[in-house]
Amino acid sequence: MKNFDINEDPHRRFNPLINEWVLVSPHRAKRPWQGQNETISTEELPKYDPTCYLCPGNVRANGETNPVYDSSFVFENDFAAMKQEEIIFEDDIKHTFFKVKPEQGISRVVCFSPRHDLTLPEMEIPAIENIIKTWQKEYTDLGNIKYINHVQIFENKGSVMGCSNPHPHGQIWAQSSLPTQVEKTHNSLKSYYDKNRRTLLEDYVQAELRTGERIVIENDHFVALVPFWAIWPYETMIVSKRAANKITDFSAEESTAFAKILKQLTTKYDNLFNTSFPYSSGIHQSPTDGFDHPEWHFHMHFYPPLLRSATVKKFMVGYEMLGESQRDITPEKSAEILRQLSDVHYKTLVK
Amino acid sequence: MKNFDINEDPHRRFNPLINEWVLVSPHRAKRPWQGQNETISTEELPKYDPTCYLCPGNVRANGETNPVYDSSFVFENDFAAMKQEEIIFEDDIKHTFFKVKPEQGISRVVCFSPRHDLTLPEMEIPAIENIIKTWQKEYTDLGNIKYINHVQIFENKGSVMGCSNPHPHGQIWAQSSLPTQVEKTHNSLKSYYDKNRRTLLEDYVQAELRTGERIVIENDHFVALVPFWAIWPYETMIVSKRAANKITDFSAEESTAFAKILKQLTTKYDNLFNTSFPYSSGIHQSPTDGFDHPEWHFHMHFYPPLLRSATVKKFMVGYEMLGESQRDITPEKSAEILRQLSDVHYKTLVK
Ligand SMILES: O=P(O)(O)O[C@H]1O[C@H](CO)[C@@H](O)[C@H](O)[C@H]1O
Ligand SMILES: O=P(O)(O)O[C@H]1O[C@H](CO)[C@@H](O)[C@H](O)[C@H]1O
Repeated sequence: MKNFDINEDPHRRFNPLINEWVLVSPHRAKRPWQGQNETISTEELPKYDPTCYLCPGNVRANGETNPVYDSSFVFENDFAAMKQEEIIFEDDIKHTFFKVKPEQGISRVVCFSPRHDLTLPEMEIPAIENIIKTWQKEYTDLGNIKYINHVQIFENKGSVMGCSNPHPHGQIWAQSSLPTQVEKTHNSLKSYYDKNRRTLLEDYVQAELRTGERIVIENDHFVALVPFWAIWPYETMIVSKRAANKITDFSAEESTAFAKILKQLTTKYDNLFNTSFPYSSGIHQSPTDGFDHPEWHFHMHFYPPLLRSATVKKFMVGYEMLGESQRDITPEKSAEILRQLSDVHYKTLVK
Repeated sequence: MKNFDINEDPHRRFNPLINEWVLVSPHRAKRPWQGQNETISTEELPKYDPTCYLCPGNVRANGETNPVYDSSFVFENDFAAMKQEEIIFEDDIKHTFFKVKPEQGISRVVCFSPRHDLTLPEMEIPAIENIIKTWQKEYTDLGNIKYINHVQIFENKGSVMGCSNPHPHGQIWAQSSLPTQVEKTHNSLKSYYDKNRRTLLEDYVQAELRTGERIVIENDHFVALVPFWAIWPYETMIVSKRAANKITDFSAEESTAFAKILKQLTTKYDNLFNTSFPYSSGIHQSPTDGFDHPEWHFHMHFYPPLLRSATVKKFMVGYEMLGESQRDITPEKSAEILRQLSDVHYKTLVK
């Protein structure tokens, strides 16, 4: 029998945002890796690629021509997962096993820059502010559509994250229902707010700032941290310090602060393994169902798959799929590593 | 406005086992793929590999020598995610944000065969029956340990599923808590049983057998089907027809029937893309907490990542991580494809 040491002993941590546990095995980072290595492209991309369907002036799969855009550019996804068409559906039979309902939605692609080779960490602050403006506009426009109750803004970066085109871009899937993960978060935020009259993340951020050990970056308006309950080795979350419900609540100063922390965080990511760091990221914020949502608190998740190097990722497989998410390095250790990394991009130094 | 067509229109389906929805986009299978391709090994493996740490008589990482085993062989995982040591822990402080508890557990590796090159579909029925016996013994032995309340039997197959050694093997992670996914399933099974005095899966299997459209294989004692709420393109579930709570409830005849359906299903998988088909699989069954669990119903999940070919997988990334699981082909279509595939292994035909 020994006393519990959170830095050494296997344990479970609780995620109050989705009410799920994660298994943490601090000692396991030492095991040797003989499995699959990812191929990470190291080729220098051109500023403009004539074969890229996202570059300005090029033709897309559906035959349309992109405008010669000079900042960001948004278009409807040619292979959308949802359709805008309204569907007639008789919901009077309540099946236990075959419960189904049609879903209406819109998918858009957001090109971050006309430059084929510039990812977020390499862009200038005004260019990132411009992406934030685009997200704000899309959130408003899509949210105003009567049947759209949720707008999911996200980015898949890197081929290992299923991204099929290196041209920097994200996506927006807007739909009538709250997706599963958002609904879980919604329920947690709501019950916390109903009880405490403060948002869960307002109090969580304060608690994290007090200990400091999981903070990666802090500025006047935002914090980037490794959540206590993070699943992915270098998972982080950007949270607004005040309880902004949604991206459209930001002042100009807050937008600039958000742009800055986005650039700093993604730069640290690239510097971790001197590679264009893959991840899926996305914003969780207030539903667009026309109601007030004082319980909602703007935050952006980053889920990066890499564990040991630019080519060795964490596999979320057997036990994780059937049992529960499991991690091999503590969130405190990951935060420390990220915190200590420079926020000057490694490519700038090499040049 | 048009009438809902489940084969054509985007919709959500409900999974009553874990109370979550999945987004189904039937029309989306048509989109072209320009993203990452997996490298699938096509090399013929030797029957014995002197460098393999799982082959009989070889030395493992920790210096121990494997016996010259001739059926299956079980050993403790050298890099276990949990430890057996008992940990002293003062749980009097109830944190909202930093909820943590130590977890005690045991990880074992189960080699399926002394042959380095034989996966489940290529093994003879008696050899598969022998693996089932091993699983039964481990479930009993581990389950009898006082602090072990759950025994997770699973297999990661193929390098794309994080498997680091092609020698056919699975794993067992046994622990004190019910892992997140199991706990969700437990709650659903329990509330259904409390209400209906039958298991959820008993009634579900009957309902599936009546429609037939998602059934892949059926024998006297088991059904292999694509669940109505499947997430992965070719996800399946093997369910016992009667409400067996756990693998140790099987009669000899049932064990043989289970071995047969395992061989048939994995053979169909290999025949789908003429490749050694990667997946994570695992058994969900009664907890080992010493109580009776009439609500539990033995089932085995198969989560295979491939979508279009031996090298193109489905990426569960941005929207899926932040929003909800999404699939591009209907479960009915997948079931039809699997059902029509031969259960004679393609390698046998080639020879
Ligand atoms: O134990 P292995 O085979 O080394 O590791 C594999 O399976 C484990 C259980 O699903 C995962 O946690 C690892 O990420 C994966 O690489
Ligand atoms: O829409 P894309 O970039 O073609 O596709 C990518 O992102 C989607 C949304 O996360 C996923 O459903 C796909 O599996 C992935 O390949």
